[in-house]
Amino acid sequence: MADPFDLVIRGGRIVTQSSVIDGDLAISDGRIAMIGKDLSGAEEINASGRWVMPGGVDPHCHIEQISGMGVMNADTFKTATKSAAMGGTTSVISFAAQAHGQPLAEALDDYAARAKRGAMVDHAFHLSISDTSVDRFFDDLGKLVEAGHRSIKVFTTYNIKLSDRAILDILAAAKVHGALVCVHAENDGLIGWTKEALVAAGLTRPEHHAISHPRLAEIEAVERLCRFAEFFATPVMLFHISTAEALEAIRNARGRGVPIWAETCPHYLFMTAEVLQRDGIEGAKWMCSPPQRTVGDQEALWGALDRGDLQVVSSDHAPYRFDETGKLRAGEAPTFPEIANGLPGLEPRLALMFDAMVAGDRLGAQAFARVTASEPARIYGLPRKGQIAPGFDADIAIWNAEESRTYGANDLHDNVGYNPWEGRTVQGVVETVLLRGKPIVREGEFLGEPGQGQWLHRESLGVEARIQPAPEYLATQGGA
Amino acid sequence: MADPFDLVIRGGRIVTQSSVIDGDLAISDGRIAMIGKDLSGAEEINASGRWVMPGGVDPHCHIEQISGMGVMNADTFKTATKSAAMGGTTSVISFAAQAHGQPLAEALDDYAARAKRGAMVDHAFHLSISDTSVDRFFDDLGKLVEAGHRSIKVFTTYNIKLSDRAILDILAAAKVHGALVCVHAENDGLIGWTKEALVAAGLTRPEHHAISHPRLAEIEAVERLCRFAEFFATPVMLFHISTAEALEAIRNARGRGVPIWAETCPHYLFMTAEVLQRDGIEGAKWMCSPPQRTVGDQEALWGALDRGDLQVVSSDHAPYRFDETGKLRAGEAPTFPEIANGLPGLEPRLALMFDAMVAGDRLGAQAFARVTASEPARIYGLPRKGQIAPGFDADIAIWNAEESRTYGANDLHDNVGYNPWEGRTVQGVVETVLLRGKPIVREGEFLGEPGQGQWLHRESLGVEARIQPAPEYLATQGGA
Amino acid sequence: MADPFDLVIRGGRIVTQSSVIDGDLAISDGRIAMIGKDLSGAEEINASGRWVMPGGVDPHCHIEQISGMGVMNADTFKTATKSAAMGGTTSVISFAAQAHGQPLAEALDDYAARAKRGAMVDHAFHLSISDTSVDRFFDDLGKLVEAGHRSIKVFTTYNIKLSDRAILDILAAAKVHGALVCVHAENDGLIGWTKEALVAAGLTRPEHHAISHPRLAEIEAVERLCRFAEFFATPVMLFHISTAEALEAIRNARGRGVPIWAETCPHYLFMTAEVLQRDGIEGAKWMCSPPQRTVGDQEALWGALDRGDLQVVSSDHAPYRFDETGKLRAGEAPTFPEIANGLPGLEPRLALMFDAMVAGDRLGAQAFARVTASEPARIYGLPRKGQIAPGFDADIAIWNAEESRTYGANDLHDNVGYNPWEGRTVQGVVETVLLRGKPIVREGEFLGEPGQGQWLHRESLGVEARIQPAPEYLATQGGA
Amino acid sequence: MADPFDLVIRGGRIVTQSSVIDGDLAISDGRIAMIGKDLSGAEEINASGRWVMPGGVDPHCHIEQISGMGVMNADTFKTATKSAAMGGTTSVISFAAQAHGQPLAEALDDYAARAKRGAMVDHAFHLSISDTSVDRFFDDLGKLVEAGHRSIKVFTTYNIKLSDRAILDILAAAKVHGALVCVHAENDGLIGWTKEALVAAGLTRPEHHAISHPRLAEIEAVERLCRFAEFFATPVMLFHISTAEALEAIRNARGRGVPIWAETCPHYLFMTAEVLQRDGIEGAKWMCSPPQRTVGDQEALWGALDRGDLQVVSSDHAPYRFDETGKLRAGEAPTFPEIANGLPGLEPRLALMFDAMVAGDRLGAQAFARVTASEPARIYGLPRKGQIAPGFDADIAIWNAEESRTYGANDLHDNVGYNPWEGRTVQGVVETVLLRGKPIVREGEFLGEPGQGQWLHRESLGVEARIQPAPEYLATQGGA
Repeated sequence: MADPFDLVIRGGRIVTQSSVIDGDLAISDGRIAMIGKDLSGAEEINASGRWVMPGGVDPHCHIEQISGMGVMNADTFKTATKSAAMGGTTSVISFAAQAHGQPLAEALDDYAARAKRGAMVDHAFHLSISDTSVDRFFDDLGKLVEAGHRSIKVFTTYNIKLSDRAILDILAAAKVHGALVCVHAENDGLIGWTKEALVAAGLTRPEHHAISHPRLAEIEAVERLCRFAEFFATPVMLFHISTAEALEAIRNARGRGVPIWAETCPHYLFMTAEVLQRDGIEGAKWMCSPPQRTVGDQEALWGALDRGDLQVVSSDHAPYRFDETGKLRAGEAPTFPEIANGLPGLEPRLALMFDAMVAGDRLGAQAFARVTASEPARIYGLPRKGQIAPGFDADIAIWNAEESRTYGANDLHDNVGYNPWEGRTVQGVVETVLLRGKPIVREGEFLGEPGQGQWLHRESLGVEARIQPAPEYLATQGGA
Repeated sequence: MADPFDLVIRGGRIVTQSSVIDGDLAISDGRIAMIGKDLSGAEEINASGRWVMPGGVDPHCHIEQISGMGVMNADTFKTATKSAAMGGTTSVISFAAQAHGQPLAEALDDYAARAKRGAMVDHAFHLSISDTSVDRFFDDLGKLVEAGHRSIKVFTTYNIKLSDRAILDILAAAKVHGALVCVHAENDGLIGWTKEALVAAGLTRPEHHAISHPRLAEIEAVERLCRFAEFFATPVMLFHISTAEALEAIRNARGRGVPIWAETCPHYLFMTAEVLQRDGIEGAKWMCSPPQRTVGDQEALWGALDRGDLQVVSSDHAPYRFDETGKLRAGEAPTFPEIANGLPGLEPRLALMFDAMVAGDRLGAQAFARVTASEPARIYGLPRKGQIAPGFDADIAIWNAEESRTYGANDLHDNVGYNPWEGRTVQGVVETVLLRGKPIVREGEFLGEPGQGQWLHRESLGVEARIQPAPEYLATQGGA
Repeated sequence: MADPFDLVIRGGRIVTQSSVIDGDLAISDGRIAMIGKDLSGAEEINASGRWVMPGGVDPHCHIEQISGMGVMNADTFKTATKSAAMGGTTSVISFAAQAHGQPLAEALDDYAARAKRGAMVDHAFHLSISDTSVDRFFDDLGKLVEAGHRSIKVFTTYNIKLSDRAILDILAAAKVHGALVCVHAENDGLIGWTKEALVAAGLTRPEHHAISHPRLAEIEAVERLCRFAEFFATPVMLFHISTAEALEAIRNARGRGVPIWAETCPHYLFMTAEVLQRDGIEGAKWMCSPPQRTVGDQEALWGALDRGDLQVVSSDHAPYRFDETGKLRAGEAPTFPEIANGLPGLEPRLALMFDAMVAGDRLGAQAFARVTASEPARIYGLPRKGQIAPGFDADIAIWNAEESRTYGANDLHDNVGYNPWEGRTVQGVVETVLLRGKPIVREGEFLGEPGQGQWLHRESLGVEARIQPAPEYLATQGGA
Repeated sequence: MADPFDLVIRGGRIVTQSSVIDGDLAISDGRIAMIGKDLSGAEEINASGRWVMPGGVDPHCHIEQISGMGVMNADTFKTATKSAAMGGTTSVISFAAQAHGQPLAEALDDYAARAKRGAMVDHAFHLSISDTSVDRFFDDLGKLVEAGHRSIKVFTTYNIKLSDRAILDILAAAKVHGALVCVHAENDGLIGWTKEALVAAGLTRPEHHAISHPRLAEIEAVERLCRFAEFFATPVMLFHISTAEALEAIRNARGRGVPIWAETCPHYLFMTAEVLQRDGIEGAKWMCSPPQRTVGDQEALWGALDRGDLQVVSSDHAPYRFDETGKLRAGEAPTFPEIANGLPGLEPRLALMFDAMVAGDRLGAQAFARVTASEPARIYGLPRKGQIAPGFDADIAIWNAEESRTYGANDLHDNVGYNPWEGRTVQGVVETVLLRGKPIVREGEFLGEPGQGQWLHRESLGVEARIQPAPEYLATQGGA
């Protein structure tokens, strides 16, 4: 041990799962080697007065993808992952989205090749499924899961929605191969009925988008997916939960032993549906699905993060420019059904959460690291990501809680061209970011290069979650 | 008042909603005129030592109908209603079943004409819908409801299932016109997945039918329909509930103010899935959907009848002969998916319930009258049926609780040819039945004539349940 | 039947449990004889355009009783029952309140003698218990129940509170003898702690009374009593429920089969805690325990009345004059703990409920008769009271819904000297009241005489609720 | 860093909160210094093929204490803590039990002095309260909490039970001073009533003890304490939960944001009430309160440990010899009320849990460390105990999962003289135990010395849990 470590981050406030430690963090060979005092490194970073946090893991972002509404994302892997890095995020999971009729492997190969060229942070893919009728679909799905793609995405709404039966077939395959099924869960019928009623009544401003996705659409679909997960005793991750009642359904399901995980996003924690009422077409900047809800829902979401009924805060980064290529492709005064759903969030996700949780001391620094990094890593199968602990990848974000920042109109590093959070002040800024021990942001300056991000092979879920239910078993499985 | 009443039933134990009265029941002009002592009638029936009950109202029976599986019912209106009358039932509601592509009014006219010729008890129709894409469908639906057909039936499974969206459209129309939507609620995807798995595994005996309709299929669909009813604040009747968890979902929905009604049937209250395990193909006689469940479910169903979470016990009479025209049309050793679902029940429904509730004193005589007569009448809009009270139709069944009867192999008066309850002894037999004051069964002898049964015009639900939700209203309607 | 009836109420809108009938109501020998058309009587009352309702049954009122706080009621049996009659109530159940150390039978005899002399409507007693340590207490209790006093009252708070153990002993005795235990359920510790904290802080105005009885005091005690009822499987009636959460506890208990009944009062349905904030000492007029709550609680109470989780609306008439003999016995500016709890309600109870339920059509006329008359009669064992049906006592109130009335400062017929509802307008006035067929109010004029009210012998609860749990049984009884 | 560490545990399977690491664990100055590869120490322990676990934290054990039934514990601090150490436990929290009328500080001083002399592992005290009426009680309580005694114990039953009001006063004081209130929660009235009924019926064998503590006694008291915690928004720890329904109450309370923690014990996880039915007086060896329950409860307890609704598995070590000084002090054939409640468990607790969780892979090794060490340490305020992480005390237990052991009649190291688990085989044995870096057990040989255990100063709960509710606040606090 005569030799020093490759790099030592000196004198910071280090946030681990065990405790918050004032000390030094040593890195060698791209991994965290030691937490201690008076460690010495070939290189050193002074973190005095700074928070030393795990680099963020953002498990829900759309990159270089065509949306369910047919609009191309504004971000490439290059722009999106630069934006992520500038915000303190060092791992992302985006989507390999199957087009209708397309073999899954082909979709995956296409996304993987583009990511390999462009990604500046580490990355993985959810297999996003729109068509199970393709030849040899379930064979391919099994092979891809076993090749390291542990998670699957399905929709219950949009033009890429799957039927209950197709979702059940996928859950059965997930059970066999050890995959985690993630779901955009809203009842398509309720949304469709309401949207038609609104359009027929001439109620087509952005604010009416919130009405068009009734609370009950989310609640019903969440209850249904909980029952499906219960049937196969296989894990389901419910994306972007927005309502208190859906949380109650999730809590009830978990209470009866159903393996449900769930996430929410900053725009549900900090915004309400009022944001869609802004003048003219401004509300369109905030349009996403499900929509923002109420202050009461926000409180419920925070409570669920505290109790662990929600485990993850992701960005659901869905980048569309506020111009004719994106939100306004139907013109300057579109009706709400013509406006692409989604908003950029990869970069501000961590700062918004840091501001509330660490600077504002809501749930605290360890909870911040938990919901933005360690729980996403654990749930999605990234055993070397998301924590500051010996042996983990040295993905680190160093935060200055003494500084604040007020967002401007277009000051993010993605390719979206607007910042929905314009005008909001956050306490706490990321100064330095390490990816596997290497600085990719230093004192706010970006140092990354396209292609330096690695694809993350993910093991399938353990065998305990994979035993196939024999039909005989189903008699009691379903209840009794 | 010098003139006596037309008919007096003398000295019986008369069951009214208010109390059980030992006295005389006077009838004039086909209606109940008076309950009292020492009344005198032009005709008299001695009911000494007998229970005088309202004639049964059976709101769920299939007559002269082609099933979702394409099999014709064994019963005509003539045979079915004779069987009903012999069992003490004086009003039935069967189905006017729309074929795919068929205008609703045409379906209704066809059934109405046949019923008019054959029916020996009073009757009405649920509009059973399989296709909302027919021309002018919703116009027709509204007109039929307003013409006196207050109830609608939809399925979430079988080949006549409707999509969520179609069901929502129907609920919206029901809200506008004041109709009650009745639902066969089981998740089609769960049933389909399980059935395929069972067949692939070679598990195709009648007992595997119970496995093929998982408990969770009912539970999920019941939760979903409760949410749909909540969305429109419009009543839904959930047919043939079989599981404790579905009852819990119903209770929760009612607790948050959702207008849900529900029924169960004798074969769920008295039988378990073990009945399907009988030797050879015998279990097929008991096959129905949902299947019989467990003893624990039976207890839960009784508790719900007691508390009023279940309001109705119907027969779900679904008559198929146990031969090549019915249950065995695929041969002597069919697989379970080839066997028509359903069993005869119009005639034994009341005796089975009387045996348990009155003779066995479970919940008691007033509860018996409630679940078999007055609640079905109230819920389905028959204000002159189902009670013994002045002004009501004199539909009366006189029971002898001192006598018992053991069912034989083929001793019902329907056209089914077998009695699934063969070997079961019930305490209590119907001796005499009056329809609008006229004996149609006397001392066990049938006196009815085809066509004497009248069609029952039913008012739509009151305006308080009919206000159309404006889109603006939906913002709070859906939750908030 | 050549002879006419004794009395016919002609042409009214008669409210029965079965239906609302426009017709004539015939009375003979003090009982309801018949409902029909064109009936003739020796005497007749023209009820054209009027509602013919069952006389009210008020099962919770304090008459000639010393309160838990040691203050004597302002009302004698004479004044209280006159007030009841003027309001349309024909049966009351008040309290035979045991003083500390007093034999139960002695307390009962005392109250019975006074009631016999003074009562102008029919009446019965709850045995109100403050001391189970008196000699031969449980022997006496059993004898009194079997002598026709079916109901028992206990408190969990005030200086007459019983310990959990004493309440359990009473529940066990109630199970044996078939009595119904009624409970004032609030946690004494929570009230005591809060009251002391308020007084220590100098917060002693009437409005602070509402704070001194925290919602959780009611919620906790209701949950506890539900568990006690569950233990013995014996019925408990929870008095004057005021909070939504207590209703939820009751609903949950009923859902698991526990025999819980519950009541609320007009001052919880129509008033909130704001009424205690009135200027000066005015709020004291409305002080009662539990206190009025919030608008949300009111909605929950109405919902529970609709669903049947609450069965009874009583007055909880607790008459104290607003002077030095009553509310102000501690002077003109008392602190809240010095002010007697309770308000007069016997007379306005029905008018307030009629205004909302019948004139305002909230739940409707049949529900009005149910919660104010038939359910109290059923639950408390008065089989000839509370309904308009042949054989029932002819206790009738005839209402004019076309007329309204605005309450004045002191226009009730009790001896309280103020009307808390001063200034409130109610639609609907009682014109004529019959007690067992005899008019005691005619066209608003009082015709009653002291002593004409009869004591009502009440059978104990049926044997099905009385089987004593053997200790061996308790192993499973308690859960398992 | 030229110097090696004081001690290195080489080549073990190290269980941390972050992950399970195959590597070396370095210790210096009694603390964990580093987890890594190829570390060198002045001393080394070969842990190849062994599990390296945090030393157990047992937060619920009775040592040198007189029970609520007046029986002296068989164990001194010396014998109890030797037994703990031999089982792998390095920190215990026992009770400083106030006698009736005794000042708290005096009780504490007495216990502290005895522990200082005898303890061989680190230790702390719960302040066990039996009398709040002692002079200056609340002043003393506050001072003791602030002097480092963070936790308080109260009983709702036994002769040391407190009234609701006394418990509320203590909760209020706990809120002010930042203490955690631990509760033995069973309804005293239900137990008393049942016990008397059993004795009166001559049902006095050990097995009847299970009946004498009805499930509902636990359920009711747990619901009550949850409401009390809700009132003050102050944490409550519910000891030794045994029933599924109590878990449901806890889960509901946590779901509405109430800060409830709860524990269970091995004898509830592995035994049912059948164990009390053993021949003769054998069942007395297993008698404790609450009693063991059913297999269904065991499943519910495991589910709650998995979900985090239960956080802690303690021993509830309550040592009484099976002779005239302990269990049999009323003779050889005592009735169950004469038998001291409690059983020894300090030593086998970890082995029983290791066997099930690690060897049997139920929930796994990290969950084992969580429920037996890190969660007790976190909840009870021991920030340097319960985890293997840099900076934590080097309290370590090294387990050999390849070896098993079958318990004999008297092979524990406490002073109880019998082992209730006699005959049970556990997979996994503790070989070596370190206390602050120093071996106190090596290869199964005990090396400890009396007095080496240190008292653990515990900070009070953070200020966020300590804000005193002003009376004005209570209006909404209590609900609204």
